[in-house]
Amino acid sequence: MKKEQVMTFLVIGGDAAGMSAASKLKRMNKNATVTVLEMTEDVSYSACGMPYNIADPDRDMDLLVVRTADVFRQKNQINLLTGHRAEKVSPKEKKVFGTTLSGQSFEFAYDKLLIATGARPVMPNIPGIDLDCVLPLKNLSQGRLIKSFISEKKVKKAVIIGMGYIALEMCEAFGKRGVAVSMVKPGETFLPWMQADLSQMIQDELVQNKVALYAGKTVECIESSQIGARVVLDDLTLDADIVLVAAGVVPCSELAEDAGLELGAGGAIAVDRMLKTSDPDIYAAGDCADAYHVVSGEKCWIPLALRANRAGWAVADNICGVKTELKGVAGTSVFKVFDLQVARTGLTVQEANTAGFSPVENMITARSRAHGHPGSTPILVNMVGDKASGRLLGVQMTGTEGVAHRINAAAVALQTSMTVSEFFQSDLAYAPPFGPVWDPLLTAAGQLLKKM
Amino acid sequence: MKKEQVMTFLVIGGDAAGMSAASKLKRMNKNATVTVLEMTEDVSYSACGMPYNIADPDRDMDLLVVRTADVFRQKNQINLLTGHRAEKVSPKEKKVFGTTLSGQSFEFAYDKLLIATGARPVMPNIPGIDLDCVLPLKNLSQGRLIKSFISEKKVKKAVIIGMGYIALEMCEAFGKRGVAVSMVKPGETFLPWMQADLSQMIQDELVQNKVALYAGKTVECIESSQIGARVVLDDLTLDADIVLVAAGVVPCSELAEDAGLELGAGGAIAVDRMLKTSDPDIYAAGDCADAYHVVSGEKCWIPLALRANRAGWAVADNICGVKTELKGVAGTSVFKVFDLQVARTGLTVQEANTAGFSPVENMITARSRAHGHPGSTPILVNMVGDKASGRLLGVQMTGTEGVAHRINAAAVALQTSMTVSEFFQSDLAYAPPFGPVWDPLLTAAGQLLKKM
Repeated sequence: MKKEQVMTFLVIGGDAAGMSAASKLKRMNKNATVTVLEMTEDVSYSACGMPYNIADPDRDMDLLVVRTADVFRQKNQINLLTGHRAEKVSPKEKKVFGTTLSGQSFEFAYDKLLIATGARPVMPNIPGIDLDCVLPLKNLSQGRLIKSFISEKKVKKAVIIGMGYIALEMCEAFGKRGVAVSMVKPGETFLPWMQADLSQMIQDELVQNKVALYAGKTVECIESSQIGARVVLDDLTLDADIVLVAAGVVPCSELAEDAGLELGAGGAIAVDRMLKTSDPDIYAAGDCADAYHVVSGEKCWIPLALRANRAGWAVADNICGVKTELKGVAGTSVFKVFDLQVARTGLTVQEANTAGFSPVENMITARSRAHGHPGSTPILVNMVGDKASGRLLGVQMTGTEGVAHRINAAAVALQTSMTVSEFFQSDLAYAPPFGPVWDPLLTAAGQLLKKM
Repeated sequence: MKKEQVMTFLVIGGDAAGMSAASKLKRMNKNATVTVLEMTEDVSYSACGMPYNIADPDRDMDLLVVRTADVFRQKNQINLLTGHRAEKVSPKEKKVFGTTLSGQSFEFAYDKLLIATGARPVMPNIPGIDLDCVLPLKNLSQGRLIKSFISEKKVKKAVIIGMGYIALEMCEAFGKRGVAVSMVKPGETFLPWMQADLSQMIQDELVQNKVALYAGKTVECIESSQIGARVVLDDLTLDADIVLVAAGVVPCSELAEDAGLELGAGGAIAVDRMLKTSDPDIYAAGDCADAYHVVSGEKCWIPLALRANRAGWAVADNICGVKTELKGVAGTSVFKVFDLQVARTGLTVQEANTAGFSPVENMITARSRAHGHPGSTPILVNMVGDKASGRLLGVQMTGTEGVAHRINAAAVALQTSMTVSEFFQSDLAYAPPFGPVWDPLLTAAGQLLKKM
């Protein structure tokens, strides 16, 4: 397809992937008609920033908006339609049908379609989940709601259902607002996706910050009470002014499924490295689509912001004839739990086993600063390697400093399928305020090699 | 050679490379006689930690000692001889000759010899360089001397000759001790090895912290004065209670040269990837030896602590029959200038030109935290790529946070000869307190790609 060809590009979903694709395609092809259907009123905001914004009552939540709908309309020349819910895709007619918030039906034809419908919070099927004080946190309007709820209802007690990223980040946000937090989840293990010592370090940080943890507890129901709600567990009842549901997310792939598109990992829309679905004129990107894992080579579903942005760009490239294949994801992520930085990339030993590797793991405790340098704190590094191929498979780290950006060195190594031995040879930076002579990652690699 | 064979391993120099080799070899081969000749009284200390220790009058300098001579003698079973200056190596006789500090001659035979004599500060040939208040900072005794000098002489004014790492780090140390600093060097450009915008950011940080910079000024002489010294420049005279000479270092390779060993890059001892010199029974490691550069593939001399430690280990491996080839160095380094973190890895555009590449560079200004997250500060990233091959050649970064460890992602990429395009696909971590969705390194790569 020639760059300047007249074409109609339709996008369902106006968040990271959708708006990245729309903007880039319009930059690459000024003659294209670019229409975005977004069911909410918000586009292009930092969803991951919501917990930190909620933590500060004096910070306007609009600060998280990267670009407003009007800017996209006027400056980027995108036909951005908010309040437009897409309800049906007809690949045969190459049309999308839907209804606006005010109840009007619409239909749009496309030459190329991008489905970027994202993911949505899992709402467990328990009595009381529909109470007014029971809220998830995924989009900006939910963020606004939680923030104003805390202020207006003078919230003092919160129960969080779930112990994932958002749950952990919201502990700090509630804490800063003077809200006492209890966290509940059915599984016995606090964080099953972290090595035990690292998981314990996070648990200690939560307990030190007065978060009450209830792992291995099932929520039977949520009852309305005088102060707001009572969260009833098997053997315990927790009072709450607010209940945050952070029990994970699922991909919004129903629209695609109903249109006959293939689904892939985690029930997300199956896409190839060019983000194409099983229909040659339909792409999918962002949290609703799957991806190749750079370590296992297998399909996976790991909804993360960078991938969504990158995939959006790649869709625009590929539609405009600039072939862009995405190598895949390593699941690199970082989050903050009070003063602790927690990061991971690649596979855990369990994931590596499932993927058919012969994994060996090793945990070390290193120091965040050089010998004799004041202020040093422990850094825990768990590294996983493959006995058969020698490859580095994954790294997890926890510590109060030097974790968040350090993980990226391992992420790059995974991207190029480096062996642990090759990684151990890397020439990493050293200065006393920032780490030991042997970077914690190198010490971890050296120790792991002895086990392999 | 069998691991447990009886052999005599002799090491000249008891710092990072020498003690690493001695300790590891003794661990690998308990029957070996391991003797280390060290001309000073100090072994195994964090030399890079000295500026930070000098900054705090209440911190004992012995905190920088990682392991004492006695521990090496008793626990590691190493015959560690301090105050032993090696003066001649005879490869023909396989012997080393020297004199102790008390004037006694000695000689030692070896089966395998390691020369780990390090580097020494350049002392410019100017009148007054031998005054008592004119001091370099390389070994621990010099560190102790400077520290006690500041306290005892109630130092108020310092002149630093040179603007390298140590000079820059000592600005902060002097500042914390209430000492006013002037820095002088002959070259017109403040930091010729940094891209101009990044160099300016460092210069601004120094000026903001009241450091007076005199680039393009030659020191004609240092005169004794009532308060200590007068540093006489071409058109200016600076008073000083102390003069720190930090005008670079040179490898201590004379002993090797006199023994007929080949010298390599920067006048350092030439070694292969197994750290062998031109004599099959003599190895060299640490700041006295050269190395292969992982980007250019050419020999270079970049004295850094990690390489010294790694090379020491590799020498022990190779002598004990565990073949260990070091891929080489990327020159990855980081240092702190007051509140600023400065890091680099790989080649500058000038170095890349010299090495025969067709380099393109690009400078971006990114933010240290996500859109809408409070406390964000600028991060400058200069990235260099090769137009011909597409390879990533080097990165330089400056900023008040998120620089020190972030550079390692680029260092790993250089280690595996990644292209800028491949690096741009890396799945790096994101969370609002630690950076934007697109990591500054990815933004830099994306922008650089457009130029390539």
